[in-house]
Amino acid sequence: MEIRVVLVEPKYDGNVGHVARAMKNFGVKELFLVRPRAELGEVAVARAMHALDVLREARIVNTLEEAIEDVEAAVATTAVLGSTPARDPMMPWEVREQFSDCEKIALVFGPEDRGLRTWEIKLCDATMFIPTSEEYRSMNLSHSVAVTLYELTREEHVPERYGRPATKREKEVLVDSLDRLMRALGIDEVRRDNVRTTFRRFLARARCTDKEVKALLWILEKARRRVEGYSRSGDGSGGGS
Amino acid sequence: MEIRVVLVEPKYDGNVGHVARAMKNFGVKELFLVRPRAELGEVAVARAMHALDVLREARIVNTLEEAIEDVEAAVATTAVLGSTPARDPMMPWEVREQFSDCEKIALVFGPEDRGLRTWEIKLCDATMFIPTSEEYRSMNLSHSVAVTLYELTREEHVPERYGRPATKREKEVLVDSLDRLMRALGIDEVRRDNVRTTFRRFLARARCTDKEVKALLWILEKARRRVEGYSRSGDGSGGGS
Repeated sequence: MEIRVVLVEPKYDGNVGHVARAMKNFGVKELFLVRPRAELGEVAVARAMHALDVLREARIVNTLEEAIEDVEAAVATTAVLGSTPARDPMMPWEVREQFSDCEKIALVFGPEDRGLRTWEIKLCDATMFIPTSEEYRSMNLSHSVAVTLYELTREEHVPERYGRPATKREKEVLVDSLDRLMRALGIDEVRRDNVRTTFRRFLARARCTDKEVKALLWILEKARRRVEGYSRSGDGSGGGS
Repeated sequence: MEIRVVLVEPKYDGNVGHVARAMKNFGVKELFLVRPRAELGEVAVARAMHALDVLREARIVNTLEEAIEDVEAAVATTAVLGSTPARDPMMPWEVREQFSDCEKIALVFGPEDRGLRTWEIKLCDATMFIPTSEEYRSMNLSHSVAVTLYELTREEHVPERYGRPATKREKEVLVDSLDRLMRALGIDEVRRDNVRTTFRRFLARARCTDKEVKALLWILEKARRRVEGYSRSGDGSGGGS
C-alpha cells in the first residue's frame, strides 16, 4: 500500500517540516499541500532535517478534490467525534487492516487550528480517529501524522531479530542441565522435581530466545563441572555435555 | 498499566513541551527528566499547550537509576540496532502485550543528539524499537514518545461507535428487499440470483453497520413501492414492509 499525505491549509511551515521528517522516518514520500497558509521557508527546512527531498517534491494544489482524485481511497483524520456517518471513525489499526490491499491511499489531515470541516471529511471514503484521552484530544499535527504512519507501515520495517524463540527441545536441555547441577549439589528428587517445574514455567512465561537459553546453559554447565570437581582448569569453553 | 515517561538529558526545552502535550493526549501524567540540559522556559510552556500540569509536575533527577528504581519494568527506546542483547529490540506492540499486566512501567528516551548509550540501555529491562525506514531512522523525540504512548494506551481510549456491525439477519432483509425491487422491475430469476449473490458478498466485504443497512433498506423499499405503484404520495417514512 502506497501512502500519500495530504495537509489541508497547514498554518505553520515548521509543522510541514516536522511532517516531512516523520514521513521519511516511515518511508513515505508523497506530500500534497492544499492551499498552505505559510511559505515553506527556513523553519520548514530546519525541521525537515534529512527529509528535504520530501519537502522539495511536495505538491501544492488548490483543492482537496485535486489532492485525492487519483488514489484508491482517501482517509480523513479527525479528533472530533459525532453521531453522523462522517464523524463515525475507524481506528488506525482498522485502517491498516482494511486498506492494506489498496494500491494507494491518501491520508488527509486538517489545519492545526480547526481540523477538517465536515464537508471536507465527506469528500473522503473513511474517517480515522486516533484514540486519545477525552481530557485532551487535540494532537500536534506532526504527531498525528507520525502515529498514523507508524501504524500503517509497521509491518514493513520490522528488523531482523537477534534471537528466535527457543524450541521446547532447547529448553528441555536447559532444564536437564539444571537438574544435573542440583543432583551434584545433593538435592533430593522431590525438591528437584519442584524446581524443574518452576523453572520450566518461568522459561515459558519469559518466552526466552535460543541465545538466552545458550547463555544460561553455559553457566549451569560450568557450575556443575566445578561442583563435580571435573573442570578445575577454569577454561572459557561453551557448555557442551 | 501506569506509564512514566523518562527523558534522559533532553537538550531543548521545546521538545520537553511537545512531549508533555503528547503525554496528556494519551492520558499519561508522570514525567521524569534526568539532568535536563535546558531550563523549562517559555518555549516549553508554549509547546505544552494544555499540558502545563504535566510540565509543572515533572520531576528532575540526577541519575537514570533514580528515575526507574520504583517501577516494575523499565523499557529503553533506541533507533540503533545491533547484535548484542542490549540492542535486541521488542516492537512497540510486543511491549504492549507483554507488559500489560505490570502495575507501572517506565519508558526511557535518550537525548535528541545521541540517543541512549548502551550502559543506559543495560540498566533497563527491555529495549524497544519503533520500526522505521532504514533510510532514515532518527525520529524527532516527541514523535517517538507520541508513537509509543499511542501504541501502549490504544485500547484505553477507543470511543463508542456510531454503528455496530450488521447481523446476518439484518443483511438478509436488505438482500430480500433488493430482490423484491428486481422482481418489480421484471428481472428474471437467474439474473436476480446472480445479483443477490454479488450483493451479499459486497455487503460482507464492506463489513457494513446496522445504520448503513437501515439507510440502504429505506431507499430500496422506497424505490420498490414507487415501481410497484403503491406509494405515489412520496411520504418520507421508513422502509418497513
